[in-house]
Amino acid sequence: MRASNLHIPTLREPPNDAEVVSHQLLVRAGYIRRCAAGVYSFLPLAVRALEKIKNIIREELDVAGAQEVLLPVAVPADLWNESGRWEQYGPELLRFQDRKGADFCIGPTHEEAIVDLVRRDVNSYKQLPINLYQIQTKFRDEMRPRAGLMRGREFMMKDAYSFDADDEAATVSYQAMYDAYNRIFTRMGLDFRPVEADTGNIGGSLSHEFQVLADSGEDAIVSCSNCDYAANVEMVPLPYGDPAIVTDAPAPELVETPGCKTIDAVCDFLDTAKEASIKAVLFEADGEPLVAFVRGDRELNEVKLKKLSGATLLHIADGGWFARTTKLPPGFIGPHKLAENAEVPVKVFVDGEIAAIDSAVCGANQKRYHFTGIRPGRDLPEDTVWADLRMAEAGDPCPKCAGKLRTFRGIEVGHVFFLGTKYSVSMNAMFLDANQKKQPFVMGCYGIGVSRILSAAVEQNHDDRGIIWPVPIAPIEVIVVSVDKKGDGLEAAERIYRDLRAEGIDAAIDDRKQRPGVKFKDAELVGYPLQITVGRGIKEGKVEVKIRRIGERMDMAVDGLVPKVAAAIRKARRGHELQL
Amino acid sequence: MRASNLHIPTLREPPNDAEVVSHQLLVRAGYIRRCAAGVYSFLPLAVRALEKIKNIIREELDVAGAQEVLLPVAVPADLWNESGRWEQYGPELLRFQDRKGADFCIGPTHEEAIVDLVRRDVNSYKQLPINLYQIQTKFRDEMRPRAGLMRGREFMMKDAYSFDADDEAATVSYQAMYDAYNRIFTRMGLDFRPVEADTGNIGGSLSHEFQVLADSGEDAIVSCSNCDYAANVEMVPLPYGDPAIVTDAPAPELVETPGCKTIDAVCDFLDTAKEASIKAVLFEADGEPLVAFVRGDRELNEVKLKKLSGATLLHIADGGWFARTTKLPPGFIGPHKLAENAEVPVKVFVDGEIAAIDSAVCGANQKRYHFTGIRPGRDLPEDTVWADLRMAEAGDPCPKCAGKLRTFRGIEVGHVFFLGTKYSVSMNAMFLDANQKKQPFVMGCYGIGVSRILSAAVEQNHDDRGIIWPVPIAPIEVIVVSVDKKGDGLEAAERIYRDLRAEGIDAAIDDRKQRPGVKFKDAELVGYPLQITVGRGIKEGKVEVKIRRIGERMDMAVDGLVPKVAAAIRKARRGHELQL
Repeated sequence: MRASNLHIPTLREPPNDAEVVSHQLLVRAGYIRRCAAGVYSFLPLAVRALEKIKNIIREELDVAGAQEVLLPVAVPADLWNESGRWEQYGPELLRFQDRKGADFCIGPTHEEAIVDLVRRDVNSYKQLPINLYQIQTKFRDEMRPRAGLMRGREFMMKDAYSFDADDEAATVSYQAMYDAYNRIFTRMGLDFRPVEADTGNIGGSLSHEFQVLADSGEDAIVSCSNCDYAANVEMVPLPYGDPAIVTDAPAPELVETPGCKTIDAVCDFLDTAKEASIKAVLFEADGEPLVAFVRGDRELNEVKLKKLSGATLLHIADGGWFARTTKLPPGFIGPHKLAENAEVPVKVFVDGEIAAIDSAVCGANQKRYHFTGIRPGRDLPEDTVWADLRMAEAGDPCPKCAGKLRTFRGIEVGHVFFLGTKYSVSMNAMFLDANQKKQPFVMGCYGIGVSRILSAAVEQNHDDRGIIWPVPIAPIEVIVVSVDKKGDGLEAAERIYRDLRAEGIDAAIDDRKQRPGVKFKDAELVGYPLQITVGRGIKEGKVEVKIRRIGERMDMAVDGLVPKVAAAIRKARRGHELQL
Repeated sequence: MRASNLHIPTLREPPNDAEVVSHQLLVRAGYIRRCAAGVYSFLPLAVRALEKIKNIIREELDVAGAQEVLLPVAVPADLWNESGRWEQYGPELLRFQDRKGADFCIGPTHEEAIVDLVRRDVNSYKQLPINLYQIQTKFRDEMRPRAGLMRGREFMMKDAYSFDADDEAATVSYQAMYDAYNRIFTRMGLDFRPVEADTGNIGGSLSHEFQVLADSGEDAIVSCSNCDYAANVEMVPLPYGDPAIVTDAPAPELVETPGCKTIDAVCDFLDTAKEASIKAVLFEADGEPLVAFVRGDRELNEVKLKKLSGATLLHIADGGWFARTTKLPPGFIGPHKLAENAEVPVKVFVDGEIAAIDSAVCGANQKRYHFTGIRPGRDLPEDTVWADLRMAEAGDPCPKCAGKLRTFRGIEVGHVFFLGTKYSVSMNAMFLDANQKKQPFVMGCYGIGVSRILSAAVEQNHDDRGIIWPVPIAPIEVIVVSVDKKGDGLEAAERIYRDLRAEGIDAAIDDRKQRPGVKFKDAELVGYPLQITVGRGIKEGKVEVKIRRIGERMDMAVDGLVPKVAAAIRKARRGHELQL
């Protein structure tokens, strides 16, 4: 490949709408272009990187016994009605009608389509297990598409679905995919963690996310400093004790706290530690008001609350709606005498950690007033539901051992779910077992965000000059730069380039009519793992070699260079650090 | 690959809705399943064949200097408004709105998206030529999806777009793609013809279709028996003379022809040859009535009529609408005294061949009446537009030499267009030429119906037992069938299978617990090019080998079998006939 024939339109400036580094770099280095909000075109280098990503996925899934299929982009509503998701899915499901008025969606995921495919042709336990996957364009109509490929609307995904005869066999399938995912992301040269995860809207009971570690990641994850426990922060069970029994303490005091509508404001005004305050978080749960209380310095965990409350639709309430509905004043809501002040019944959930507060501050359920001296064991209603409702933080105890948790940020690139029979039951997908009895398939589903991997890899592998591709997914492995535009230097560069290609290395030569400085800058930006510069030293039989990640130029003899470079690249393709 | 782990659900019966052989066989042999009208899922064998097809396309396009990109499935209406096609395209364009009400379509073709991509980053003649392609799922909301993958709504397409500085350079790009297409379809082992073609709605001036020859093809094509001329039948220019000057002949006679609304009926009733009759074909052209006349035994060519009339929207008129609008009686319309009987002006076009009829029959523009004795040179209006309006037929003269035309049926699998500046002008896609003057890109566009190739290949390569895959696109090249379920036979089969895999041959073993008869039947149906059966002969060191296309079983020694088979397959991959 010759840079003069490759469409790599590098830009000096990042686009205005790019906030995260991977978005900036993928645009600046000529990998992607925005077509609409959350919808991107992929330029030649991105397609090359995607192909390498896809090939690694395919190879490992094939080894794991999965078979590739291709399901439609346009999925008929009939199937989504069977599963019930046509109504449930919400506005992220891009619904449309064809010219005859038939309802369709652009598949954001393909459980329905695959169940339909399998139930038609698989009807005996003898045909099980079966695991089918596809790599396909999907669409989720995100409210706020952002961060380039990280949270786009149109994206490329690998999704796999396993079908087994019973839970035990399905667990084996799940484990096989879990193992395959570990191999896949390891082979891509990414620093990642599999973490225990919530099963979200897909339903099911067992789930792991594969998180690429990056400070800019959307997801908070924790791992134990002592054992191998790792989980999405949403998933960490946290301990709490019973509320202390209070016998002899002054009653709560009603204090005026004008304008103190936030925990910070009220704690500041009353000169109280946030650890001794109670924060209210207001929700609309299936249309009804719900309040959850956590300690003022903590973050409420919506995933836990959703599970505990059993609500189907749970979201932060609009303050005005909440006030109108309950007559409780947002900013001044607390667990003491809440029911007495509310016009309608309000569901209340209290994080167990609050039980341990000796004397707490909380809203008084009257405008401009808070209580001080709240003794949770005494002042909260007797029927209070104490529960685990807060988000884990660094230093929290590991749920598996005596260790302490550390926190990281991660980008989710893969997700494995144990689905169970949710879809097979609702869509009547049955097989005959050994006793000729009808049974629903036990399913697993397994996703990889193929295009998101580009972003995740760049978030994790870049510096202020540009991208640093891990070799296994680099669009081009070696760039040969000739400083000379003709003569011996150019000839030597061409020879090195040709010899590398002959060795099966994905090499390119930058033969553009550009100044060397431009070529070097582009090489850093584009992120070729290894750069060979043919300059003046060629007269003494030397060239400069630079490993992008290390950054220093080394003089190396042209003699024997190509086999050395080829060997190093081959080793790096297998996941080793690139070294010469 | 083991058949026991491969999802190849063969069926005994073809689906009810399958009229053409390829549709029947692809469903029966376990390649595709219908998900909605014109929307299919692809099973593992189909995905394998598609991958081989895609790889051949990619290799040849890369050689031709094209670069792979990936454009969005969801294309914003803004771009289609710029080109004007948002309004023009008609109901085949699947339009939808996102959650914020922004208009999008599922791209049926990507001229707009690619022009937008290129105009942003290419602005100098120094960056030209550039040729970008993608392989992507597309959607056209056909009124009558049919014939399986042949005319589906969702389909996989390779589309490429070239950008050049001027017509001359663009012609070079066009020729390079024309040559690449010839190599591509040759390598796939298909019997095809490139033919001159209409440019249809895409616009432009030069165009070839690549037609796979098959009796069931939708397209009629012609080729010369003498020279290399070949064209879509719609495109063939046909000669005609001036109308004879008539001096001495009886006037037309008005005859009653009750109920004779068709040419067949009226010729039968009047005992006239159809060659001596004039047929009216009624159109609605941009909302106005239009009549075209051809000889009664000929077919009108709508492509020619559309060009000649200059109409933007031209379609066969609803008879009731035509009658109401013009007061002319459908079934009794003729070119003599038409204007006198019509209430509104009607555009009239007459095929030149009619000029040569000595004495013709035609409608009298009154219900239940025809004229006989029409002398076209005398009785048609003086301002009659004589034109080339009929469809070519076998035996018509070649427009390039003295030869005669033959006709074939074909399935269009590829299409190359010289687009010119249609899209670059409308979308303001300009570059600076060597004189720093702004110029519009000169474009070409080039499609291949990737998923349709599956159908076309099967239409051309099958017998009554099933599919006969050409080796270069066969999902699996060799199937090894063991008659024994254990013992020496099974062991020998396993060894042959393993050795073939080790030789790089795409081999599979049918290790299912099925009767040999079932395995043989499936092998024929699925269409493996070569079948090795390990049966009783194994005791004498012999196996049976069958080339699917030839059909006879040959005894061959196990000794030396694998290298022989591997060599034959490798040769066949390069497009040679599979022979041992």
